Amino acid sequence: MTKPEPQDLLGRIYAQWVVEMSKYPDMSTELLRILFDDWQRATAEPEDVTYRHTEFGGVPGIQVRPLGADSSRILVLMHGGGFALGSSASHRKLAGHLAKACGVEAFVVDFRLAPEHPYPAAIEDGLSVIGALVARGHRMADITLVGDSAGGNLAIAMTLRLLDQGRELPRQVLTMSPWLNMENNGATLETNNDTDFLIAREGLQANIDRYLTGSGTGPTDPFANPLYADLTGFPRLYITAGDVEALFDDSVRLHALAQKCGVDVTFSVGEGQQHVFPFLAGRHERADQEIRAMAAWFAAGYQN
Amino acid sequence: MTKPEPQDLLGRIYAQWVVEMSKYPDMSTELLRILFDDWQRATAEPEDVTYRHTEFGGVPGIQVRPLGADSSRILVLMHGGGFALGSSASHRKLAGHLAKACGVEAFVVDFRLAPEHPYPAAIEDGLSVIGALVARGHRMADITLVGDSAGGNLAIAMTLRLLDQGRELPRQVLTMSPWLNMENNGATLETNNDTDFLIAREGLQANIDRYLTGSGTGPTDPFANPLYADLTGFPRLYITAGDVEALFDDSVRLHALAQKCGVDVTFSVGEGQQHVFPFLAGRHERADQEIRAMAAWFAAGYQN
Repeated sequence: MTKPEPQDLLGRIYAQWVVEMSKYPDMSTELLRILFDDWQRATAEPEDVTYRHTEFGGVPGIQVRPLGADSSRILVLMHGGGFALGSSASHRKLAGHLAKACGVEAFVVDFRLAPEHPYPAAIEDGLSVIGALVARGHRMADITLVGDSAGGNLAIAMTLRLLDQGRELPRQVLTMSPWLNMENNGATLETNNDTDFLIAREGLQANIDRYLTGSGTGPTDPFANPLYADLTGFPRLYITAGDVEALFDDSVRLHALAQKCGVDVTFSVGEGQQHVFPFLAGRHERADQEIRAMAAWFAAGYQN
Repeated sequence: MTKPEPQDLLGRIYAQWVVEMSKYPDMSTELLRILFDDWQRATAEPEDVTYRHTEFGGVPGIQVRPLGADSSRILVLMHGGGFALGSSASHRKLAGHLAKACGVEAFVVDFRLAPEHPYPAAIEDGLSVIGALVARGHRMADITLVGDSAGGNLAIAMTLRLLDQGRELPRQVLTMSPWLNMENNGATLETNNDTDFLIAREGLQANIDRYLTGSGTGPTDPFANPLYADLTGFPRLYITAGDVEALFDDSVRLHALAQKCGVDVTFSVGEGQQHVFPFLAGRHERADQEIRAMAAWFAAGYQN
């Protein structure tokens, strides 16, 4: 192993997962899902936040309600986990920190997972949630889509679908370490291989296969790989990622593409930070700082 | 396999764990801990409850605060998981349901785990929490000890220590499917082997070995195996367990012993229910009914 020692809890959790996944390369999807629910361990409980299991548009998830939050504005969070793993349980506390900082509610979507439900099931579930929120009286302009890792891909793809159909768009889209490159050829897969404690090309390919096999689409379809999308008309966009991540290239390319297409885009780079470093909220100063930065960006979107 | 199909989510979760543990009999303690944190999946999020990570007496855990709760009265919850597994994360929601029904706060104790920390480290950590609560102004009479499975053993052992030392006792002790028999020879290990989806003699023995090896004590020490204790002077005691559990015998024997020793004891049997069936709170009528029964028993303890 050429990797250095992990410097924070998130890196240690990732390194531990990799040990277990390497030991049991035939690990079932069920056990991988249990393993990735351990993501929750990185995050401190946000204080003064309540939760309930509910559903919107038939799609289950956890509604996150900070005390005193403005319930008209809502974050719809599409969780990471390579389209196949992750859940409202892994992301509950992350959503809690962000919603609390923004002063609004959040809904963490338990969309259908691959490989049982390949592309575009997750996108459709996310759009069902949005449709149900609007049917209950939320305005599209009061919805912010949030997504980390594969969930960042989904949040962007959902917005591209609405854009493609000429429908009203969410106010803004916030992504953390978005995973977009389904061709699996990002430059930082090589150059950051020694500093990223979780992500490696083989694992990504397994998730690409789970997501796209049987979907009828391929790795350059802009709805599966937004790096191939025309982002003209896309709403305000926030990107944060760690510069030592294997997937850092995805964020760099998304940022450049958004700029080229005239999108109001903000790119916050976490120096030395791991994949989806805001998971360390409540436990790590840089993560807390990023939560505050995302909340400031969120609020600015209501002042334009 | 002679086992029937699991009839509820808890049984399905247990059956799934057993599949994975059987596939990888060399599973590391770290991976087993991640697996058992999946216990949380059985429980619905209790509404109107907030959480924070904190510590009492240097022992970390999650403080559970239902909105409007009486913060002078507190449940101290010692979690199950065979002394080696389980955490405040696995038991947060279970504690939330119980605390909310009781109208009080709870603290889920992340005591030191075996085998790194064998007997009596967990008991000492639990007593440190109680000591710190008293130092902060709680009265012993406002503390209720709660424990499920191995945590039931710990809650009883903590009380026995205080009793042995002639110190003030908690108001009452509430146990769910307590695991007490360190000789590993309960009758229902055989007779309920086909109906319990989690517990089997071999797994129990592995946990006994983790807990007692290097501890300097043995399986009939009353502080490790309260079935050997003199319970004279023990506070009010509640026991609930499912009658199809492999560990049902432990509850039957504890109930008989408590009666013999003149303890004010209540025994609630969950017909057809799995190990620690209140984990299904918010998802299963019998579990919700048991939460209400435990809360009624809790309240009655303040009317004597």
